[in-house]
Amino acid sequence: MLTAVPALDQPDDLERRERVARRLDRKTKPVGALGRLESLAVQAAVVLGTDTPRLRHPQLVVFAGDHGLAAHGVSAYPQDVTAQMVSNMLDGGAAVSVLARRLGLALTVVDCGVRADFQPRAGLVRAKVAPGTADASTGPAMTPGQGRQALQAGAAIARDLRGDVLLLGEMGIGNTSAASLLMARLTGRPLADCIGRGTGLDDTGLQHKAAVLTRALSANPPTPDPLDTLCAFGGFEIAAMCGAVLQAAADRRLVVVDGFITTAAVAVAAALAPAVLQRCVFAHASAESGHARWLADLGVQPLLDLGLRLGEGSGAALAWPLLDAACALLDEMASFESAGISDRAGAATR
Amino acid sequence: MLTAVPALDQPDDLERRERVARRLDRKTKPVGALGRLESLAVQAAVVLGTDTPRLRHPQLVVFAGDHGLAAHGVSAYPQDVTAQMVSNMLDGGAAVSVLARRLGLALTVVDCGVRADFQPRAGLVRAKVAPGTADASTGPAMTPGQGRQALQAGAAIARDLRGDVLLLGEMGIGNTSAASLLMARLTGRPLADCIGRGTGLDDTGLQHKAAVLTRALSANPPTPDPLDTLCAFGGFEIAAMCGAVLQAAADRRLVVVDGFITTAAVAVAAALAPAVLQRCVFAHASAESGHARWLADLGVQPLLDLGLRLGEGSGAALAWPLLDAACALLDEMASFESAGISDRAGAATR
Repeated sequence: MLTAVPALDQPDDLERRERVARRLDRKTKPVGALGRLESLAVQAAVVLGTDTPRLRHPQLVVFAGDHGLAAHGVSAYPQDVTAQMVSNMLDGGAAVSVLARRLGLALTVVDCGVRADFQPRAGLVRAKVAPGTADASTGPAMTPGQGRQALQAGAAIARDLRGDVLLLGEMGIGNTSAASLLMARLTGRPLADCIGRGTGLDDTGLQHKAAVLTRALSANPPTPDPLDTLCAFGGFEIAAMCGAVLQAAADRRLVVVDGFITTAAVAVAAALAPAVLQRCVFAHASAESGHARWLADLGVQPLLDLGLRLGEGSGAALAWPLLDAACALLDEMASFESAGISDRAGAATR
Repeated sequence: MLTAVPALDQPDDLERRERVARRLDRKTKPVGALGRLESLAVQAAVVLGTDTPRLRHPQLVVFAGDHGLAAHGVSAYPQDVTAQMVSNMLDGGAAVSVLARRLGLALTVVDCGVRADFQPRAGLVRAKVAPGTADASTGPAMTPGQGRQALQAGAAIARDLRGDVLLLGEMGIGNTSAASLLMARLTGRPLADCIGRGTGLDDTGLQHKAAVLTRALSANPPTPDPLDTLCAFGGFEIAAMCGAVLQAAADRRLVVVDGFITTAAVAVAAALAPAVLQRCVFAHASAESGHARWLADLGVQPLLDLGLRLGEGSGAALAWPLLDAACALLDEMASFESAGISDRAGAATR
């Protein structure tokens, strides 16, 4: 069922990487002076398979779902907030709504498994697998069939959206816990390295969360199959994101990863198809304490570090102007030759 | 001649700071979850003197000038490049031209003292003090009269531009050296802490630059007056920026500082009027090695760290969407009350 994601190391890819890098070197600026923007432009060229990448119709998709674990109070917020925030996003009042509007991103919210029913409305995709996952502290959060259904729903959504860039967002009370469990299992790190305060737990809350997550790890023994691990801890929104990432990567789109929870989805996808990471831009290092560690484990470097810990795709949205600018610079800047400017080779005055 | 810049610590300012911070706390997000964007929104409110700041008509101004020191080969590029890049910026081919266009910033280029003549054209302000500063390695780069003229020209430009935000950019072969000299003198740090490779010097070039700058420090003994220090090392573009910063700060505008050289202008302005710093947003930490140190000495934290070392205002331009987004979030996000969302106080499920 999973789409293959080939590595971007074919002769065509490598030649393009070289060619675009050399073209950037001839732009009217010192070599490398645009820093990370230059590597973003090269990455966009290789991923999209064109020497002149422009990122059209950027799609910010927020995947939402509820978590059985939330009944144990692993979040600072009650579970109803998931559904309330889905409505808030669609009403235009959430942070991600404001950012999408202001930054020119199409916003789609996907009900992957929220514990409430939504009427059809513009901007909402209804792909509910079930009204919340099962309680991972007593066994798998999702059945294999549910996991497959969520993955396929995410892949279908990515396939149906137009454009060159998929920006990932999520909403789900309790999903920081699911992401921590996935991190512990996928990286082999101790749980303490993988948990944090989520959207605002105090010390007592954090201890309680650690105890609940320890039970969830015991209730779901390790397995070599990333999909089994995904099913063990959920949630539906993480599984759907994983499917969307695999599909977008296979379709040669850039994927902009937001914070800790979207990183979990990408990490599962990368465990299945490592070349996924070549298509990913990691938008920011979140304030959730495990995130920076996980990014380091994945060998990737985030673009921004703004102390964000909101999720929703807010960090991905804020990284968008950098990606867009990188491609515009590659496309529109003059070269030393075209602008008649002396290169450093002309520095005869020294 | 210099405009007073009052500290933003009047009762009105402090009350506004509290009020806006509390309003952010009631937005539909965990307290503090938008990280640096929240402090940007509060800063914008206090600087602009309104609870609902929106940043209109952002102005990116590139101040250009040539440096007598450049004759000693302290830059990787020949001096003619200053004039060539001014034309390139106005033609739309420079990095800053592309970024300004793409990000919706009005771009103005100011000839403060380029060693070439320009015909009048759209986007160019002609405020040439002289065709390049004198050689600072043998005495002051600017006379007191020239320094005053450049400061006043910069202040007049800031006064004449509309809008709520001034974004600083600069162009001038050799101006990394002038900024290093200003840093050494203003911070008291050893020269080695203050110099770097500019836009691309190799090891030999760097040693040569250190020798030239050491001569410049000897030729211009320390003085307690920041304006005398500014005149000692130049350049015209740094002096004009300093005047523009003082004026914009007095007019309650936000000032977005770019890299190492614009930081030099702001540091001189802050030496004259410390409250200037309350109006400044430091866009990024540049790859020029002294920059991060200087920002730390000033007690400020840059927003971005993208390995940029171009100048032109490129980093300031890239920080703009973050400022704009911060104000949009404050203005447009729903509150828990308005959206009917359960706050954490409702977390009875734990």
